[in-house]
Amino acid sequence: MVKDLSQKKTYQKIVAASLELFNQDGERHVSTNHIAAHLGISPGNLYYYFHNKDEIILQLFKQYRQESIERLSSNGICEDIGMMIDYFQSAFALMWHYRFLFSDLTTLIDRSDALANEYQHFSQEHMGPIIRAHFNSMIVAGVVQMTEEQVKSCIFNIWLITKYWFSFDASLHQGHLTENTQERGMVQVLSLLQPYVSEQYLNMFNEALNKFKVTD
Amino acid sequence: MVKDLSQKKTYQKIVAASLELFNQDGERHVSTNHIAAHLGISPGNLYYYFHNKDEIILQLFKQYRQESIERLSSNGICEDIGMMIDYFQSAFALMWHYRFLFSDLTTLIDRSDALANEYQHFSQEHMGPIIRAHFNSMIVAGVVQMTEEQVKSCIFNIWLITKYWFSFDASLHQGHLTENTQERGMVQVLSLLQPYVSEQYLNMFNEALNKFKVTD
Repeated sequence: MVKDLSQKKTYQKIVAASLELFNQDGERHVSTNHIAAHLGISPGNLYYYFHNKDEIILQLFKQYRQESIERLSSNGICEDIGMMIDYFQSAFALMWHYRFLFSDLTTLIDRSDALANEYQHFSQEHMGPIIRAHFNSMIVAGVVQMTEEQVKSCIFNIWLITKYWFSFDASLHQGHLTENTQERGMVQVLSLLQPYVSEQYLNMFNEALNKFKVTD
Repeated sequence: MVKDLSQKKTYQKIVAASLELFNQDGERHVSTNHIAAHLGISPGNLYYYFHNKDEIILQLFKQYRQESIERLSSNGICEDIGMMIDYFQSAFALMWHYRFLFSDLTTLIDRSDALANEYQHFSQEHMGPIIRAHFNSMIVAGVVQMTEEQVKSCIFNIWLITKYWFSFDASLHQGHLTENTQERGMVQVLSLLQPYVSEQYLNMFNEALNKFKVTD
């Protein structure tokens, strides 16, 4: 459908404007007409690229997925505390960039089978193996000490916490997300790992953890 | 509004039938007309007791809250592994009984300020102090060894995991909840506590944990 450079540009402009408006006003308060008006194009022109809002959301999810896979697998595998912190920090920063997705993922997924499939595939086929590789490497490097069962439960809890974090944190702050949402999320995820950190790395780990303990 | 015994009976019948239908078919697929038809009463008769579905849901939440507070605070405070397991098992069994609430709590809360307030108040004023008392008691009894910071993070993660558990588990099982959902939830919550269990209680704890590891 996207044929030439000018069309590609319009397509990308729609996607970028949608992300901005969804993040700023909440996805449910933004219609395709709002997006068209924001860009100064006609609703018919927008419709040429996207038949409905869920198609734009799906495109934004694919963009998030692509960036996640690139960022989180390219930085090498965690072999020390610093790399582990960087890894989770990158993950939260990216979720923050696409925060409208994570503010009410359940509703978006319920509304779109395509998004549900993409999300499930992404989580299980991409993120699962990436995070598992990080854990294996941290165990080999002696940064953490965990049994296979503990790794499995821990990855599962990290997945659950990150999936719902933005929604949960907003519910505790009058429905609003702030940049501190990321720091608070980091503290919750790192606290899952803390009991498994080897003694020689514990001070370093706790120092890093304390840096994320911001005020509400 | 509920004046005499026959009215009280109708009121309770509406609440009980709603819980049954919401759990069975999913709250979003059940209208007040369905509930009235199920009970063989007119929509007008139902409307005399409840002006809309959200009023029924609020009543069901209050019933859940009441039962939670009674069950989870009356059994005494956790002083050993068995009591701790019983406590979480009671909590999951009660959530299972009201599972429609926890299958999509975010949507229900977004729709109703009254429910949002009740939930927040219940979590922070009732459940928070109850679970905190259990942790304090387990620490004093030497069942677990945790710092104040670890208790805080752990309670917070338990809250998050239990709040979203039914929604998360359903998303991994083609949208369906089964009784095993409770067992899987127990495993995730207990795995948060496992690294803090004192050595002399660890075998007992792991045996209990393994009992909940059911197949998918």
